[in-house]
Amino acid sequence: MRIALDAMGGDHGPAPNVGGARLALAAAPDLTVVLVGDQAQIEPLLAAAGVPAGRAEIVHAPVTVEMKEKPAEAMRRKPDSSVFRCWQLMAEGAVDGLVSAGNTGAVVAGGLKSRRFLKCVHRPGIATVMPTAKGRCVIMDVGANVFPKPRHLLEYGAMGAVFARHMLGIERPSIGLMNVGEEEGKGHELVQKTYELFRTGPLKDRFLGNIEGRDIHRGAVDVVVTDGFTGNVVLKLSEGVSEFVLGLVGQEVIGALTTEREAAALALKGLIAKYHYSAFGGAPLLGVEGVCVICHGSSKDKAISNALGAAAQDVRVKLNEKIVAELEALPPSEE
Amino acid sequence: MRIALDAMGGDHGPAPNVGGARLALAAAPDLTVVLVGDQAQIEPLLAAAGVPAGRAEIVHAPVTVEMKEKPAEAMRRKPDSSVFRCWQLMAEGAVDGLVSAGNTGAVVAGGLKSRRFLKCVHRPGIATVMPTAKGRCVIMDVGANVFPKPRHLLEYGAMGAVFARHMLGIERPSIGLMNVGEEEGKGHELVQKTYELFRTGPLKDRFLGNIEGRDIHRGAVDVVVTDGFTGNVVLKLSEGVSEFVLGLVGQEVIGALTTEREAAALALKGLIAKYHYSAFGGAPLLGVEGVCVICHGSSKDKAISNALGAAAQDVRVKLNEKIVAELEALPPSEE
Repeated sequence: MRIALDAMGGDHGPAPNVGGARLALAAAPDLTVVLVGDQAQIEPLLAAAGVPAGRAEIVHAPVTVEMKEKPAEAMRRKPDSSVFRCWQLMAEGAVDGLVSAGNTGAVVAGGLKSRRFLKCVHRPGIATVMPTAKGRCVIMDVGANVFPKPRHLLEYGAMGAVFARHMLGIERPSIGLMNVGEEEGKGHELVQKTYELFRTGPLKDRFLGNIEGRDIHRGAVDVVVTDGFTGNVVLKLSEGVSEFVLGLVGQEVIGALTTEREAAALALKGLIAKYHYSAFGGAPLLGVEGVCVICHGSSKDKAISNALGAAAQDVRVKLNEKIVAELEALPPSEE
Repeated sequence: MRIALDAMGGDHGPAPNVGGARLALAAAPDLTVVLVGDQAQIEPLLAAAGVPAGRAEIVHAPVTVEMKEKPAEAMRRKPDSSVFRCWQLMAEGAVDGLVSAGNTGAVVAGGLKSRRFLKCVHRPGIATVMPTAKGRCVIMDVGANVFPKPRHLLEYGAMGAVFARHMLGIERPSIGLMNVGEEEGKGHELVQKTYELFRTGPLKDRFLGNIEGRDIHRGAVDVVVTDGFTGNVVLKLSEGVSEFVLGLVGQEVIGALTTEREAAALALKGLIAKYHYSAFGGAPLLGVEGVCVICHGSSKDKAISNALGAAAQDVRVKLNEKIVAELEALPPSEE
């Protein structure tokens, strides 16, 4: 199993990528990591990390797409940059999957351009895993498709359910549609039409209808279906609210203690680590041939390692074959 | 000053409405509350609450719009229900404002139907106040207009800024546009066109550009402009994430303590009360003649009282006159 890693991607350059590769290789004996980036920077880091010979390769790609660069421009001006080289390697069959903590728009653009979509997929989307009071849920899409059609959302429900079953071990995942109220008929035309597609199609038994913002973290459903605009806001807002609330807890609850202040601070630190995004294995772009896992720009070693592990697991369980089988059961698209 | 209260609105019937009226009357000597609802239920509650004679009146309206009822249907079938009677009273000039914890869609529908919009307003929207690491911010719209035009969002920025200045005391409120990334050109057509309207119009000096989900609670801007779909998800998700995180803190942080467990639980309770929605005075529907404040369906006495207080304050500061003045400075709409 070979996974390409965009070694220049992310806010912190190659160091956490090399560190993440080292951790992932130690955890998975069947894995080879292909580090794509500036050889002069990667080589000494690899040597210092003590990665065993033969487990990591370097593909030299000195050009980097910056985090704030516009994806379309980057693709035109920097076709040889590390992220697009990763996609090329996958298109050539040189790797089974890729992982990047770089510019998300560029990662997605590379996928839309250089790879074919899976059979029956009209638009790929990004799935992400979030913690809930009952365990974990999948949200799709969180940013690849900010103005989707109802059919895209139906397919996201199907793909998200396959992901939840094979990657999270949820036998029969329930599906909910992000909306502004529970009742049928709520929201704008996109969600009204999407509701109808779910209600009348083969996923109807697993479709629990509309859910509201407060239902996600209560664990009301296993798969939350939404457009990439709303999903992206949900993802980042969840991070922001957690940060805000935990900050207040630090000040106003732990700050109120005396003898047990240290114990409480330690427990809070453990809680933050347990629910940190780095524990959740990145966000896969589902619907493309090959495997692509996108990481948070601020990822450190552990987040990169978990994403590499998740990408390898997607390959092992043959996630794409299962997605195609699920989508083939959907009625033909009217698009 | 006379404010109508939809005494039947909310999940808990007339009791918290009467309780809220009592608290609000005690706090504001210039206030009269007109309780609109089933006289047979309200009268004994009012007597038991010991509300002084002359400070509260009852307008009999025995029909109630249920929380799950479709607004358009409710308006057709129940034109005399308590919420629509509130709007009629305001249209007749019998009250200066109204407060309802009932079906939000019905409250908004009543406003769109029975009242004229303020001069220069193309579509009213709901503003809400949220706590941030730096104080408070206003988010608009959170559900009245789920598929707005760019011009509507420009007006929401202007109205939200007037609200932030006169109700929250922020001298020169900054404005941000909810989006999926900070860079210009991000997102779908609606936000791209809205960005352009802000960038080139009279609010340009206060417009800080796009903000992401994680920026809201960091206090990046004073006014967050968004469509009613996204805003509604933001509002309810913030509640859900807070609930989830505080639950974890209770279990995993406070649960880890021994001698100071009670002190920590007390501090956590204080924190929850301080940031609870009931402290924030409800959500005004801005852009209509008269004052309309919408409350959470689960509101108890304190939330109703704060909403009545906020409605009275909107009247006192002549918020609508200030909104019209601000909107008159915008360039003519191309709609």
